[in-house]
Amino acid sequence: MTSSTRKASITALDCLDLRFPTSATLDGSDAMNPDPDYSAAYVILRTDAADGLAGHGLCFTIGRGNEVVLAAIAALRPYVVGRPLEEVLEHLGGFSAELVGDSQLRWLGPEKGVMHMAIGAVLNAAWDLAARRAGKPLWKLLGDLTPRQVVDLIDFRYLSDALTPAEALELLERAAPGKEEREKTLLAHGYPAYATSPGWLGYPDEKVIRLCREAVADGFTQIKLKVGADQADDLRRLALARATVGPDVRIAVDANQRWDVAQAIAWLEPLREYDPYWIEEPTSPDDVLGHAAIRAAVGPVRVATGEHVQNRVVFKQLLQAGAVDIVQIDAARVGGVNENLAILLLAAKFGVPVCPHAGGVGLCEMVQHLAMFDYLSVSATMDDRVIEYVDHLHEHFVTPVRIARGRYLAPTEPGFGAEIGADSRAEYLFPEGPVWKERAAWTPQRSAASR
Amino acid sequence: MTSSTRKASITALDCLDLRFPTSATLDGSDAMNPDPDYSAAYVILRTDAADGLAGHGLCFTIGRGNEVVLAAIAALRPYVVGRPLEEVLEHLGGFSAELVGDSQLRWLGPEKGVMHMAIGAVLNAAWDLAARRAGKPLWKLLGDLTPRQVVDLIDFRYLSDALTPAEALELLERAAPGKEEREKTLLAHGYPAYATSPGWLGYPDEKVIRLCREAVADGFTQIKLKVGADQADDLRRLALARATVGPDVRIAVDANQRWDVAQAIAWLEPLREYDPYWIEEPTSPDDVLGHAAIRAAVGPVRVATGEHVQNRVVFKQLLQAGAVDIVQIDAARVGGVNENLAILLLAAKFGVPVCPHAGGVGLCEMVQHLAMFDYLSVSATMDDRVIEYVDHLHEHFVTPVRIARGRYLAPTEPGFGAEIGADSRAEYLFPEGPVWKERAAWTPQRSAASR
Repeated sequence: MTSSTRKASITALDCLDLRFPTSATLDGSDAMNPDPDYSAAYVILRTDAADGLAGHGLCFTIGRGNEVVLAAIAALRPYVVGRPLEEVLEHLGGFSAELVGDSQLRWLGPEKGVMHMAIGAVLNAAWDLAARRAGKPLWKLLGDLTPRQVVDLIDFRYLSDALTPAEALELLERAAPGKEEREKTLLAHGYPAYATSPGWLGYPDEKVIRLCREAVADGFTQIKLKVGADQADDLRRLALARATVGPDVRIAVDANQRWDVAQAIAWLEPLREYDPYWIEEPTSPDDVLGHAAIRAAVGPVRVATGEHVQNRVVFKQLLQAGAVDIVQIDAARVGGVNENLAILLLAAKFGVPVCPHAGGVGLCEMVQHLAMFDYLSVSATMDDRVIEYVDHLHEHFVTPVRIARGRYLAPTEPGFGAEIGADSRAEYLFPEGPVWKERAAWTPQRSAASR
Repeated sequence: MTSSTRKASITALDCLDLRFPTSATLDGSDAMNPDPDYSAAYVILRTDAADGLAGHGLCFTIGRGNEVVLAAIAALRPYVVGRPLEEVLEHLGGFSAELVGDSQLRWLGPEKGVMHMAIGAVLNAAWDLAARRAGKPLWKLLGDLTPRQVVDLIDFRYLSDALTPAEALELLERAAPGKEEREKTLLAHGYPAYATSPGWLGYPDEKVIRLCREAVADGFTQIKLKVGADQADDLRRLALARATVGPDVRIAVDANQRWDVAQAIAWLEPLREYDPYWIEEPTSPDDVLGHAAIRAAVGPVRVATGEHVQNRVVFKQLLQAGAVDIVQIDAARVGGVNENLAILLLAAKFGVPVCPHAGGVGLCEMVQHLAMFDYLSVSATMDDRVIEYVDHLHEHFVTPVRIARGRYLAPTEPGFGAEIGADSRAEYLFPEGPVWKERAAWTPQRSAASR
């Protein structure tokens, strides 16, 4: 067999521990996460194909434990390395089912936590590679699939009491008309964003006011504040923000799982005077019935959750129980693109808008593709839909998001957006990279002892 | 300071990858787990105390991925090693809260999957050490606590809509009278067990019949069969088992998460002729509403689940939704003894019996202590309560369970029971131990490729 006819294979699954010392500035601080070091368990899928392309994926963590996700990614090597490239990329539904369904690895979940996040990172790297080889951004690759092709990518196990393959097909076929028009609209005007940057708990009031002003000036029509650490602080900050942005800009509030059910309801009561648009993560992401009880009590404030929802089975129940008004998908928490397709279709079935979680490391870069696909092929609308936007760490990405007038501009470069530049990968490598060598005083031991 | 007054510290957290090649015999085969290699991510907590005692704990897995749990356990070292021993052991509620609540590690769950199982293994090792130092088996150490001491060990976060600390205290105080009598009963007669060994899917009919006969002859009044791979097989095996054991021995069936909701209901319909006592894990362990729908349809067959239920928040909802008739705690899935105390109290609050999951590696040895504590201090009854019993791998344990006339005899040796003998630890160490060196043909690669 000559090298020109030899079929390409996946030759390596590189794992990198990348960490950014964000705890130094309190960017990203909230009621449950006081000192995050935003990190990525980073994956590169390499092949021996002549095109020289690689697939990049990542799992976002907030520091300690990033190495555990990398150990889980390494455990997937035997399922990936050595596989014929086309067999994998042309059957990403089957590849997803293999990784998610492996009986021994499944014991570690099933389909949740570290192992599932690792599977998501690897699958997303494969999707990145598929999009690069097709010369398309992922949103376009997905948008060009037929309804049947989309359905074939999804694992419907445990979903059929809420969504069957036939119903999914019908939803997609119903949404198909007008897709070309929507693509033009997307390319011309982008997709609405909202700004979380004003609202971190670690910021003084003056900074909150300044950032609120800037967000409105930048064209954002929704901002978000973190709440849940101190009720009086929350009231003061929300009043300040409302006075700053006026009545027409939506203000979401986000408790990052801080409360029990009754506490959430009581805490929100006085905040309602300032018209919060949604309350995000009021309690445990596992608590479907808790969210339903909170939603029944706090209306017209909407209930949103999802960034920590472990898989499609929990999203299914949140929708079945009428527990959420807003579904917040995350690109790097569930089992990758395939599971997010299932979640988009579940939300459409129940008529609930999807407003993705982003921020972190590369979450904006990735999740915009899924929201844009939702607009093209599933919900077919941007009404009441916004993608979270946080303005940090984008400079490390090869194709950073582009924001204009409060909207994400549709990316045009091939791929899924997760690629971190080689310089940043070298600089922020943990613990060997120069950024961390300089911080020799920081060790997990010290951090644990000082809690 | 002399060595006699120096305060002892935790000096090491040893991590061992122990795997038993059970896939060779199909012991442990079921509808979702065709070829498990029963394994333990094994922990030894060492100290410099004069007593020379160590604490042993483990997380049970079924092979591949055991190393991922070990990476998670290693990530906990900074929270454990170097800590003053008494500070940890005298405040195990606080120690649990520290491990579970660390903001950065929490991102990897929260409270689920690999990271939570690792925390459980470390906490259980600390409990083992505490019991050894007290010279008591764990059930006795727990049983001797006051209601207030038990409540102080529990994290009530996310539980207060179902169970408050005051309600838990009341439950424990109500159960207190008669505790001494119950301890005598326990020591004299043990705790009822049921036998799963007859029912593995990989066994031929003749072996099933023989093992059913033996189970009845051994005094078991309940057995369990695996179902869910092939309905006709299930019907035939259940009919054979019922004919063999007669009408008075309970036969539970276990689908190991194989079905969607409607499929579970349809599959069970013809099986009901043979009076199955409970259906275990009919669908995803995450699907509270799914279990509720199944339970509403399949009565009088009871619905049981728990071995894969990730934490107390999901158990809370299973109880709130009326989704289960039987709560199956597992000693090594949730965040250790502390979280299992919460689950026992939740079950008591809702009046649902706890019938622990066991088998695996060391699960029988550990979970018996929790069931016996439940009898002493929480439910105060053994009625309709049975601990699973599977008769393999016990020979590797220093204090293996003792079964007589279908009952677990109360262990009398100090500790939590998880200690594997040094010889077995050396022999089954993966991949360096002699058992695995002999099986050089087995590699994760080969296993993955041959699926």
